[in-house]
Amino acid sequence: MGGKPLTALNVVMFPSKHLDMGVLREILRGGHDKTVEAGACLVGGHTVDDEEPKYGLCVNGVVHPDRIITNAGARPGDALILTKPVGSGVLFNAVRSGKLPYAELEREILPIIAALNGTAMDAGLKYSLHACTDVTGFGILGHLLEMAHGCDSRIIIDYSKIPFYPHALEMYRKGETTGSNKPNKAMVDKHHLEMCLNLDNASEQLLYDPQTSGGLLLALPNSQADDLIQALYSAGVKYAAKIGEVTDESVGITVQ
Amino acid sequence: MGGKPLTALNVVMFPSKHLDMGVLREILRGGHDKTVEAGACLVGGHTVDDEEPKYGLCVNGVVHPDRIITNAGARPGDALILTKPVGSGVLFNAVRSGKLPYAELEREILPIIAALNGTAMDAGLKYSLHACTDVTGFGILGHLLEMAHGCDSRIIIDYSKIPFYPHALEMYRKGETTGSNKPNKAMVDKHHLEMCLNLDNASEQLLYDPQTSGGLLLALPNSQADDLIQALYSAGVKYAAKIGEVTDESVGITVQ
Repeated sequence: MGGKPLTALNVVMFPSKHLDMGVLREILRGGHDKTVEAGACLVGGHTVDDEEPKYGLCVNGVVHPDRIITNAGARPGDALILTKPVGSGVLFNAVRSGKLPYAELEREILPIIAALNGTAMDAGLKYSLHACTDVTGFGILGHLLEMAHGCDSRIIIDYSKIPFYPHALEMYRKGETTGSNKPNKAMVDKHHLEMCLNLDNASEQLLYDPQTSGGLLLALPNSQADDLIQALYSAGVKYAAKIGEVTDESVGITVQ
Repeated sequence: MGGKPLTALNVVMFPSKHLDMGVLREILRGGHDKTVEAGACLVGGHTVDDEEPKYGLCVNGVVHPDRIITNAGARPGDALILTKPVGSGVLFNAVRSGKLPYAELEREILPIIAALNGTAMDAGLKYSLHACTDVTGFGILGHLLEMAHGCDSRIIIDYSKIPFYPHALEMYRKGETTGSNKPNKAMVDKHHLEMCLNLDNASEQLLYDPQTSGGLLLALPNSQADDLIQALYSAGVKYAAKIGEVTDESVGITVQ
């Protein structure tokens, strides 16, 4: 984290026999638009015929060697700021299974998911960032666990402070889930999770929900946390919340 | 073509539930070794759980803007040099279906497939290359067709000069084929193919066989062709053959 993207290549798997090529065109257009928005150039790519569509960008960029921000530098006393809600994974599956109308996803949720993290990162780089990661497939606890291990410390999370996407809890209550929840929970359970709350299953599952284009987790001195949150909102970031702190206790995660 | 690779990123789809993780380790080791052999650095990557394994490298490099060699610059009077045999596609499928023992593939054929094209390219760059492409999924005729269209000329191929992998013709005779042969043939048939030979079906299918890590097709003045072939062999390239010529006739391909 902390770098500047320069070039991007499309990596595409597409079922040309089952899906209209217009869908591929829209995927490529979206990727192109986001690349340009990020200040980089889309310079090529590769497509493979596949059973299921997959799309990604292979990005190259530059970063000052002294200013690389990894997920391993958090320090006791740091606050943890999250810049997007959690719970997008279950919503995609709920749309597929018909539990959530696509219009709901498109109107309220996709604009947040589609927002680049560059805006939040640029705001964060003006503060004393110690560590940063983006929340993706391992869910909020999985990525927090990596941060905790990276700095050999315990991270204490305030569940009530985590922003969740609208409908996400409701979809878990309706029995929807994702293929990643179980392995994500298994991974965290093995690694010193201390759960101080008596959460119902749906509320707990939100902690293991895999994110597509999730937000950033930023660790910085607690004294700068409020200023950063203010700066994030001023920069146009829609959600920014202090969800926890790093302590000097034994490595792991505490949810309270 | 004509560039120098600098960095590479792994792009991996792997069925972690069905295949042993040791297989993944071997794939990554092979990719790493080839990247180092090419003089580049493997600097990261991304893995996705998938039904079928897929592996590729996303490569960045540099090329002098005046020395980019595309598949579009061939000129009438050029010779076409091919630097690897054709027919690997059917061999992979024949191993899968049990028609060809894996040991045959491993001993005779994989070392050629695994050879980097960099050696051939370095040798070629000392000559007046007008165009270059690598033979991959579209088969030898598909890639020749792209070259013919790129220079708006007719390419005449001497079928008897095309090197084929051992067993490839035999496997087509045994009824083996690939999913790409039919679309590859359909693509070329539509685009001014003139077939002057009365080939049996198996011999014809070799022209549509998709290649994995196929050789280079190099176009350069006919007067330099023999010297280049000599230089390719001296550099350690195992197969190098003049398979055809570019003419000033109407765009398309003639196989004779």
